[in-house]
Amino acid sequence: MSAFVQAQQDVTAEISATMAAIDAADVDALVAEIRAADRVFFVGVGRVLLSLQAIAKRLAHLGIDTVVVGQITEPAITDRDLLIVGSGSGESAIPLAIAARAKQNGAKVVHIGSNSQSSMRDFADHFVRIPVQTKLHLAHEIPSIQPMTSLFEQCLLLLGDIVALVIVREDKLDMPSLWRNHANLE
Amino acid sequence: MSAFVQAQQDVTAEISATMAAIDAADVDALVAEIRAADRVFFVGVGRVLLSLQAIAKRLAHLGIDTVVVGQITEPAITDRDLLIVGSGSGESAIPLAIAARAKQNGAKVVHIGSNSQSSMRDFADHFVRIPVQTKLHLAHEIPSIQPMTSLFEQCLLLLGDIVALVIVREDKLDMPSLWRNHANLE
Amino acid sequence: MSAFVQAQQDVTAEISATMAAIDAADVDALVAEIRAADRVFFVGVGRVLLSLQAIAKRLAHLGIDTVVVGQITEPAITDRDLLIVGSGSGESAIPLAIAARAKQNGAKVVHIGSNSQSSMRDFADHFVRIPVQTKLHLAHEIPSIQPMTSLFEQCLLLLGDIVALVIVREDKLDMPSLWRNHANLE
Amino acid sequence: MSAFVQAQQDVTAEISATMAAIDAADVDALVAEIRAADRVFFVGVGRVLLSLQAIAKRLAHLGIDTVVVGQITEPAITDRDLLIVGSGSGESAIPLAIAARAKQNGAKVVHIGSNSQSSMRDFADHFVRIPVQTKLHLAHEIPSIQPMTSLFEQCLLLLGDIVALVIVREDKLDMPSLWRNHANLE
Repeated sequence: MSAFVQAQQDVTAEISATMAAIDAADVDALVAEIRAADRVFFVGVGRVLLSLQAIAKRLAHLGIDTVVVGQITEPAITDRDLLIVGSGSGESAIPLAIAARAKQNGAKVVHIGSNSQSSMRDFADHFVRIPVQTKLHLAHEIPSIQPMTSLFEQCLLLLGDIVALVIVREDKLDMPSLWRNHANLE
Repeated sequence: MSAFVQAQQDVTAEISATMAAIDAADVDALVAEIRAADRVFFVGVGRVLLSLQAIAKRLAHLGIDTVVVGQITEPAITDRDLLIVGSGSGESAIPLAIAARAKQNGAKVVHIGSNSQSSMRDFADHFVRIPVQTKLHLAHEIPSIQPMTSLFEQCLLLLGDIVALVIVREDKLDMPSLWRNHANLE
Repeated sequence: MSAFVQAQQDVTAEISATMAAIDAADVDALVAEIRAADRVFFVGVGRVLLSLQAIAKRLAHLGIDTVVVGQITEPAITDRDLLIVGSGSGESAIPLAIAARAKQNGAKVVHIGSNSQSSMRDFADHFVRIPVQTKLHLAHEIPSIQPMTSLFEQCLLLLGDIVALVIVREDKLDMPSLWRNHANLE
Repeated sequence: MSAFVQAQQDVTAEISATMAAIDAADVDALVAEIRAADRVFFVGVGRVLLSLQAIAKRLAHLGIDTVVVGQITEPAITDRDLLIVGSGSGESAIPLAIAARAKQNGAKVVHIGSNSQSSMRDFADHFVRIPVQTKLHLAHEIPSIQPMTSLFEQCLLLLGDIVALVIVREDKLDMPSLWRNHANLE
């Protein structure tokens, strides 16, 4: 078997196992918070931020008003908004600082991470666990065959895209019509 | 005189001279287009893009709906929108491609540049000239003592911020209250 | 079965099927081009760009010199460099313009897409096919149950991360030591 | 006098007055730190970040190795590197957190701001003062006729570009040749 085929099977197998281990009730609560919010803000760093940006972009195509913290025209957050924090360890300094500010402004906060015992518990109204290994090597996590935290970042993107698919199905959205909300300049 | 003081005097002198040479009627027309548009899109590359992003951010604080082309949640442009293109030479490939798409979608296009005889004329409804040297070293331009196109990028930022000040004054906006539109998470 | 569990199974199934359908010899050639290049540049738009940015970031952790086209400190491309273009349809205007410029500068170009008969053929030295549905709804592609081009963007991220894993394994890299190349300010 | 001409004269006058009030010895020390560093990192938020990105880009064209904190391929900072923090008030949460991490890693830190008595004093080896009004309305500052902190952001960009000009002159760099370091794909 080629090195690529072996690696491809290893990666897709651990992604499928991880995704299957996510608690469905946690995701149902996340979908409900997204639907209840006026605007959905996203914060994270590094590759986690890239996965969150992809989620924000897809949800915007479904008609949801999304904001990535740090974007050029970032509006003020209010008590009718939701902040989604992506952080495997739940200990990243910037997401913690932003989550604290969001709570001060009355917003709801959902944390998507892998460490259920993190400092983010002080700010999060709700926690969705992606049960993978973090930098902190906590117990009860699935060890990954991939370098660094790739498995978390991949599963975070898929979780967001699965939430989008759930909303498409629940709302019986016409998929071809979604291109109307898509940028038309590129 | 120290090297810094000499350079500081040289730079502020050439900025002041360039800004004073911009045609007031051109800027009045730009302000009118901004006020008439539902949304104002901005496109450029490199340091020009950074100046445009700063302008988009400040105008958003004044309550104007601004979009930077390429931002994560970029909406579709319509015939009620304005595209502002920043390009000194008016020959950059990406801004030209985006301006062509904007025209196809019925949007108004304003080009801010230094070369009045560029390919951008095919797409721009209106041209605002910042009379500085470009890469193409055209005649009738003020030669700059600074490297590359720094003078254009500086004057572009100032032009946008002066437009913001004109709007603040014309609308008698209360400046401290503008912080209400400012991001509150950082 | 909950809506989430159903959607999760559908998504991971179509990802696994798509990844298994990628030609291993194409990926082997991509890995060889990455190893041969002085620097690896990446270009794409929208969510495709986000997947490419994640790949560029992970490969940089492995010690590969990567550049995202448009980044603040983008160097000039040379004939010792590689440009990786991500574009499902192979017809996006900006990636085509950038690929043309890369060829003029003597760089190698690899196109990762789903449409093997696109305009990108004029510029690409090598094509890696992710066999999914594009906007253009071409034949011989796997139709996706997800909205828009999510499946392509997901598989692009996974393809890049699998390439990273292949390199880690071939070079017997010590995974914990990779954190030395990671940003340490956040 | 037209509204534009009046605003243009007011803005260029307050920029020239502010730039002339910057202490030359402070800037000389900043230039020396930039020259002594292996790499120069930049951190800030909002429009301040945009000014810093423009500075990082221009200095890179002069052959200086620059990094914007948060960029896709951000390397680890070391004790041979310099962090330049842009923050008018010196109280922004993220720049303070990043400056603290930079000090822990042994890097030099220069703060460019307007408030000399800020929390940033705990981390900065050197302070360069742009004497303008901040959000905190401190005494001994030049009140601005512009909204929000535009004057600080404009003067920050000019300060960086003047530093670039000082280096060009001191090193007798050939300005046309700087385009060799410029991105060639756009």
